[in-house]
Amino acid sequence: MIRRIHHINFLVRDLDAALEKYEQLFGRPADAREFLPDRGVETARFRVGETWIVLVMPLDPDSVPGQHLQREGEGFFLISYEVDDATAAAQTLARRGIRVLDDVPRAGLRGWRLIDLDPADTFDVVSQLTEET
Amino acid sequence: MIRRIHHINFLVRDLDAALEKYEQLFGRPADAREFLPDRGVETARFRVGETWIVLVMPLDPDSVPGQHLQREGEGFFLISYEVDDATAAAQTLARRGIRVLDDVPRAGLRGWRLIDLDPADTFDVVSQLTEET
Repeated sequence: MIRRIHHINFLVRDLDAALEKYEQLFGRPADAREFLPDRGVETARFRVGETWIVLVMPLDPDSVPGQHLQREGEGFFLISYEVDDATAAAQTLARRGIRVLDDVPRAGLRGWRLIDLDPADTFDVVSQLTEET
Repeated sequence: MIRRIHHINFLVRDLDAALEKYEQLFGRPADAREFLPDRGVETARFRVGETWIVLVMPLDPDSVPGQHLQREGEGFFLISYEVDDATAAAQTLARRGIRVLDDVPRAGLRGWRLIDLDPADTFDVVSQLTEET
């Protein structure tokens, strides 16, 4: 059901500074730089194999990413697994014993449809499902 | 140069308990369960697309993973990017401005050759290179 790691988000305080180093790491410019107003963030992403590495800079300290940054600092934020149908996959996971936090997907970058899982069930790794539309 | 995300390590306190939930998430048993004595850990891993998700349980609290677990708790530990030649890739990254912590690769699971990068240059995401042998 889970086919690949769709994206991984890293929280950063200064997107320009982070981009400078990640461009050195990956040896090329980011593939896209975008705002996601619903989430209160500016992002830049690199395609690495079949996965997006997304640098996420919170613009609003009260947003979910902003609160995470204040609480935990920079670094890994979440991992998202690709599925064909997020709603159906969430129902399947719930039947298997994984707690799902959303009944209805929320919108991510580029219309990605996201459903969050309970981090307690993935041992404090914030994990979610992504369906591409 | 970096071709894909080779593996991602999550630290757990109780590998059996973590496996029970990750088997629910991925819908199947782990692909392998192994000790890595040099690192003081027991591991279990799942292939997800082109990437290994590795659950890592420290057996020695003084090991690097054990110290990380004590300091930061469970959750994301590190991301490793696959390259053809870890030593050459590390030299290229150093020329671009990324600090590299090892001159010589150390051994990981299955003979993976690993070189650690300075987490300060990846904004507190512990990052490394893997060469498969």
